[in-house]
Formats: sequence, structure tokens, C-alpha cells
Amino acid sequence: MTQNVYDDPTFFAGYSQLLRSREGLGGAPEWPTLRAMLPDLAGRKVVDLGCGFGWFCRYAREAGAAEVLGLDVSQKMLARAREMTTDAAIRYREADLDRLTLPAAAFDVAFSSLTLHYLEHLAALFAQVHEALVPGGRFVFSAEHPLYTETGPDYLDEGPRSTDWLAKGVVKQHRTLATYLNLLIESGFTVGHVEEWGPTRAEIAAHPEWKVEGRRPYFLLVSAVAG
Amino acid sequence: MTQNVYDDPTFFAGYSQLLRSREGLGGAPEWPTLRAMLPDLAGRKVVDLGCGFGWFCRYAREAGAAEVLGLDVSQKMLARAREMTTDAAIRYREADLDRLTLPAAAFDVAFSSLTLHYLEHLAALFAQVHEALVPGGRFVFSAEHPLYTETGPDYLDEGPRSTDWLAKGVVKQHRTLATYLNLLIESGFTVGHVEEWGPTRAEIAAHPEWKVEGRRPYFLLVSAVAG
Repeated sequence: MTQNVYDDPTFFAGYSQLLRSREGLGGAPEWPTLRAMLPDLAGRKVVDLGCGFGWFCRYAREAGAAEVLGLDVSQKMLARAREMTTDAAIRYREADLDRLTLPAAAFDVAFSSLTLHYLEHLAALFAQVHEALVPGGRFVFSAEHPLYTETGPDYLDEGPRSTDWLAKGVVKQHRTLATYLNLLIESGFTVGHVEEWGPTRAEIAAHPEWKVEGRRPYFLLVSAVAG
Repeated sequence: MTQNVYDDPTFFAGYSQLLRSREGLGGAPEWPTLRAMLPDLAGRKVVDLGCGFGWFCRYAREAGAAEVLGLDVSQKMLARAREMTTDAAIRYREADLDRLTLPAAAFDVAFSSLTLHYLEHLAALFAQVHEALVPGGRFVFSAEHPLYTETGPDYLDEGPRSTDWLAKGVVKQHRTLATYLNLLIESGFTVGHVEEWGPTRAEIAAHPEWKVEGRRPYFLLVSAVAG
């Protein structure tokens, strides 16, 4: 199964301290861009692939979603997500997204934030998500941008990359931007919008720790429509 | 109007010596990948945006295209293209692609090789191409990959880049990959396939001059369908 680094005590402690863990969506600089790519959630059935602490699941309900299913491989994250809501329309379920099966045509919207770059079997997941969406359903996700996972001259060499981020030996799967898009298209999705998110010059000025990165993209954001 | 560097004597002389100028499509390493993205050309009306010496126009006719229109801003290139064929089904026309108008629903296939990164008004061109294609028509193009035009930390800063390639001060327009795709989608196209072309390890071994680049992409190849 995919490395479950989120249940590593060192990683979990570090991750819990990130602004996006403490403040939720408002602490994620890419959130306004990603939110603008979402369809109207009112009355919709939503699945969140890699829900973490459940920030998006709770947001979806606040935005009017009828039902939300949050999936994550991390028991620690699911436990905290469950502590943070009493809303019976939000269900959380432990799931390895690399071996996921979902009921057919059960959701209107699939969402995933910064999870897909950990997965080995992305084609299989995209096929599952496509089948789980109603026709015309929307899939909106963010992932670490390929230029962030692979900064060296080996952009076209896809495969695992081991990094030390919050813990030693965190494994991410490097895929080119073309591969993300072609896998979606081959699964039956139509690409709706693509964003390569990086900080603006004003944001860089306000975050000295971003200066070294310059204006290269951190995150790939995609919205797609199920055909 | 867009810089017409191809009619600069120094540039033209240098460009004429490139393998892709002397040997045509077979001298372009990305051609097999681009060719695989083309629809069947038999009986089709084809427009080539930035036809240069006309290699693709002649290929399209050999592949059975009914009519081919080659457009280019360079009088020198058009003159040589005209010298290389007596085929009455190939027409060549001088055109500034930044101010192009085409007749509506006049073509089945639009093609462009390594031209779009010179243009300032890409949204306007994509709108023209969409209108010039029949519904379901195909647009297949290559452009210099954004990671080639902008190797530094300023990938997200779009705009002109001046480079010394065959001549001093050749101006290319840097756009992110997301911008290419979103402009297509906003023009009414559906993205069909995306390739980020770079040399394989075997090709790098055979071309020592490519070694310094590593496996970063040189060319962006896209096929799209007119909705």
C-alpha cells in the first residue's frame, strides 16, 4: 500500500503545526483559486479524496452540500476530523486511494487537495472517480506541481521522489503535467480549467521563506467534467 | 506587427542550415510524436499556421489532404516553399498570425509547428482558428515549451523574452502551460492530448549538445477538438 506518512508521529506533529492545519482552508494560499474552480455545491453529493482534518468536508456542508464523504488513509487525521464535527451528513472513512472502489454514479462532485502526488496508481483512481460521478459531474483537485516535486533537469523522468519534508524519506510520485491531463482525458474527463499556482510578487514579499523559490508554481489545480 | 525575425538575413541563413530546414519533418526530433497526434488527413482541408518552407503542407498532400493553405509572415520562407512544389492544391499566403482572419468553417484541420510562441495575441488567433474549423475539426500544434522559453525562477511571469538564437534579440512570448490550455478551452476547444516533448536518454546520448539540458521538455504538443 501507499506510504502512509501522515500517521508517522514526527510527520503528524509537524503537519499539525502548518498554517493550513491550524487555520484550515483560509491558511492555504491556493484556496481562493481552487474555490473559484468549484461548481455550486448546494444540494450536491460530494466526495473528498484525502480529506485530512476534514476542513473541506465541513466547508462543503457550509456551502450547502447535501452529503459529504471524506476519505483518508490516515487514522490519526480521520480521528481528529471526526472530533471536529457532529454533522451527520458528513461521513469519514479510512481508505487507501491507491486501491479505492466507489459506488457508481454516487457523487456530483469529487474533490482532492494535495493528495494525488502520493499515489502510485493514478490511472486506476481517475477511472474510479469517473465511474463514481454522475454524467456532467465535476472533479476538482490540487496536487503538488511537477516543477515542485522535480526541480532538477529530470522533469520528464517520472517516478518516485524521496524528500525530507516534516519527516525523512517522504515518497512522492513525480508525474509531468501532461500525464495528469492525459490520464484524466483517457478516463473520460474533459479538462475544464488548469491553474499553475505560485505566489504573487506581493505574496513573496510578505513571505521571505518563499523568496528562494521565485515565481515557479507550487501547485497544479485542475477542474474536469465527467463525460 | 510581430517581429518577423525569419526575414532577417543572419537568422534566415542560420535557420536554413538547421537539420529541420534541410531535411524537413524527418529532421525534427518531435515529428513522430506530433504526427501521431494528427487525425487522418485524407480528403481534408488543412491550414498550416506558420508553414515556413512548406514541409508540412507537402506532407499533408502526400497523406491525402484535399487542399492545403500555408500561411507565414516570412516572404523569404514563402518564396522557398513555392519553389519546392508545383502542386496546385497547396496555396501559400503571407499572413501576420497576430492579425489573422480566416473564413468560417473552411477547414477540417489546423496545424502549427513552433510558431505560436512568437505571437502576442494568442487568444485572438485561437478564436479565429476555432471559427475557421468545422465542428469536430482538429487543431494540432507544437510550441516551444514554457520551461524552455523560461528556465529561470520566473516561470509564472508571462511576457516577452529576448534571446540570442541565430540572431540577436529574437523575441518569444513566454506563457505558462496552463495559459495555452485555458486559452484553447475558452476559445471553445476540448483538449484531446498533451505532450511535453524532450529527448529520451538514448537521444541525449546520441546528441552530446543536448546533454546539458537533461530531460526537461523542449516542446509542448497539443491536440484539440473544435466544439
